[in-house]
Amino acid sequence: MKKIRLLTPGPTPVPERLALRMARPIVHHRSPEFEAVFARVREGLAWLLQTRQDVLVLASSGTGAMEAAFVNFLRKGDSAVVVDAGKFGERWGKLAKGYGVNAVTLKCEWGSAVEPAAVEKALRDHPGIKAVFVQANESSTGVYHPVRELAQITARSSAILVVDAISAVGAMPLPMDEWGIDILLGACHKALALPPGIAFLGASEKAWKLNETADLPRFYFDLRRERESQRKNQTAWTPAIALVEGLDESLQMFREEGLEACFARHERLARAARAGMTALGLSLYSRSPSNAMTTVLAPAGIDSEKLVKHLFAEYGIKLVGGQDAAKGKIFRIAHLGYFDEFDILVVIAAVERGLHDLGAKVSLGAGLAAAQKALAS
Amino acid sequence: MKKIRLLTPGPTPVPERLALRMARPIVHHRSPEFEAVFARVREGLAWLLQTRQDVLVLASSGTGAMEAAFVNFLRKGDSAVVVDAGKFGERWGKLAKGYGVNAVTLKCEWGSAVEPAAVEKALRDHPGIKAVFVQANESSTGVYHPVRELAQITARSSAILVVDAISAVGAMPLPMDEWGIDILLGACHKALALPPGIAFLGASEKAWKLNETADLPRFYFDLRRERESQRKNQTAWTPAIALVEGLDESLQMFREEGLEACFARHERLARAARAGMTALGLSLYSRSPSNAMTTVLAPAGIDSEKLVKHLFAEYGIKLVGGQDAAKGKIFRIAHLGYFDEFDILVVIAAVERGLHDLGAKVSLGAGLAAAQKALAS
Repeated sequence: MKKIRLLTPGPTPVPERLALRMARPIVHHRSPEFEAVFARVREGLAWLLQTRQDVLVLASSGTGAMEAAFVNFLRKGDSAVVVDAGKFGERWGKLAKGYGVNAVTLKCEWGSAVEPAAVEKALRDHPGIKAVFVQANESSTGVYHPVRELAQITARSSAILVVDAISAVGAMPLPMDEWGIDILLGACHKALALPPGIAFLGASEKAWKLNETADLPRFYFDLRRERESQRKNQTAWTPAIALVEGLDESLQMFREEGLEACFARHERLARAARAGMTALGLSLYSRSPSNAMTTVLAPAGIDSEKLVKHLFAEYGIKLVGGQDAAKGKIFRIAHLGYFDEFDILVVIAAVERGLHDLGAKVSLGAGLAAAQKALAS
Repeated sequence: MKKIRLLTPGPTPVPERLALRMARPIVHHRSPEFEAVFARVREGLAWLLQTRQDVLVLASSGTGAMEAAFVNFLRKGDSAVVVDAGKFGERWGKLAKGYGVNAVTLKCEWGSAVEPAAVEKALRDHPGIKAVFVQANESSTGVYHPVRELAQITARSSAILVVDAISAVGAMPLPMDEWGIDILLGACHKALALPPGIAFLGASEKAWKLNETADLPRFYFDLRRERESQRKNQTAWTPAIALVEGLDESLQMFREEGLEACFARHERLARAARAGMTALGLSLYSRSPSNAMTTVLAPAGIDSEKLVKHLFAEYGIKLVGGQDAAKGKIFRIAHLGYFDEFDILVVIAAVERGLHDLGAKVSLGAGLAAAQKALAS
């Protein structure tokens, strides 16, 4: 017998309650029944993002919302600061290239967060920058960027701050209005624990002002059209109906847990994962560890890809390794979404066991003990 | 007690088998387990579209695939023929406007199909036309356009034929390679009977040739990038995993029924619906009725919106009325997807009863009898 356990940072495990909700007979999207669900979802997302702005729902995966955050607010030939600290930061640069926007790229070493001073300097050196693009949590490295400090900097400039929080929304505080984040985007298959297929995005008045003169071509991701429809609890194009139903249920679960409690849970699990890994003598990869995932350097002589494959083949435990520059070097433990304390203990146990199997020197149980203490404290 | 019955042309009812498949624990998309599913889906879609070309899967609703069919094959300033015979044909024109493509619009009266000669003339009058955009089934009117004849015309020109078959794929024969359709696009929430959130598209060599020089900006819907990934059974961006699983199951159901048998079923249901409506003294709205849906003019003095609302409120039967120019005038009966003969009898019974309730003169049972005879013949 082998139980399969998904412990990856997206998709994340889908709670039975959400799966059952989505398995209900489908409703028509141009109907009062759907509109009532959609109204609740809009309200719930605004609550989750802590904003008074419209949060617009898109039928796409996260990259679609990244594209929407790009094409709706810029003009061809505009300049923008792109924080590139990993695979997802790099994607902003590719979007810029694809749409004829000049990127001032702040390349950060993998595993490091951007220095707020570097963004400040870039804005000073390049007057007329329209936007700063960054991730809240860079999923390829597990780095948390200093979003609040960045928002303070952009607030003093004419640039908007665009935060890809796909793997952060719901896992850590990012109060959009209070911090002054101009565009905050997320997706449903991370902390919200749904299968992928929905992304969403809120935009500040400063951002909507830019939208008035933006001229990059757009159609499917035209946010002005979406705002007009969604204020009537409709969508411009056919929505991902079953996922919207699931989102309604997921937001209800969030409300039951409470936003602060949910952030605290993610923080507690992150602390336990870090304590467990450190107690095994392993080094964390991220120098600015986020609460969404813990990235860990495999010990010398151990290929992290091999470890990840072994854990799945032998124990049914699905972790992910590193991408690109970090391939073979790191593995990533998710604690983003539907995870509780015992799930984290399971993953630590699996890492201990896997490393032991592959011949690394680990003190079996040491990671578990450290995590237990962190959880109980 | 009131049973709810969805009889709309998208979303269409989701069979329990698909709902249960999608409710299974989610798998990670960067894994051999998912790749095996995706490989089957790609093969199944090529079988469904009757093509040897790659059929690319997108995480979006149908309009996303329409945009992809536009931006991947044209250059800014190109000219294209747009067949506008309803709400969805109109959308091609909006895409053209949004992306700086000159549309030569062939406006057809609502309820009518395009004349092949009109397309031939447009290609002659406007040398250098790059593409002809059309629907197979125009969902706002229930009109079937003469796709095969159009393909014969474009085959003799340098233009490609782009067919939005969102509400047609799986319901009627559109053998892509045999007929010479250059781009054939569909979505999962019509005949494939899944919740919305996936669209797909096949492109001919003639189309891929245009892709080499196409310069409209694109990123999320970049088909060349998708083709490169999907040939490795991966997707460029996170796929709508649960829907891909459902699509695998839906294609399996199609294979079990057989493609010809499935087309024949849709044709039989369409014949019965038309016979039933005609026997009630009602007129069909579409002068080129498709097998995906039957559009019917409400009798004089009856507002079709009122009929549709009454049927849902009183009997739980969900039909849709008309859009835009046809609002209040028509109602639409879907027989697209997971519908059998008895479902069609139910909808005819409901229409008889609803019209009777609203004071129209109908011979109760006459529609049912005519449909029964059509089904048994």
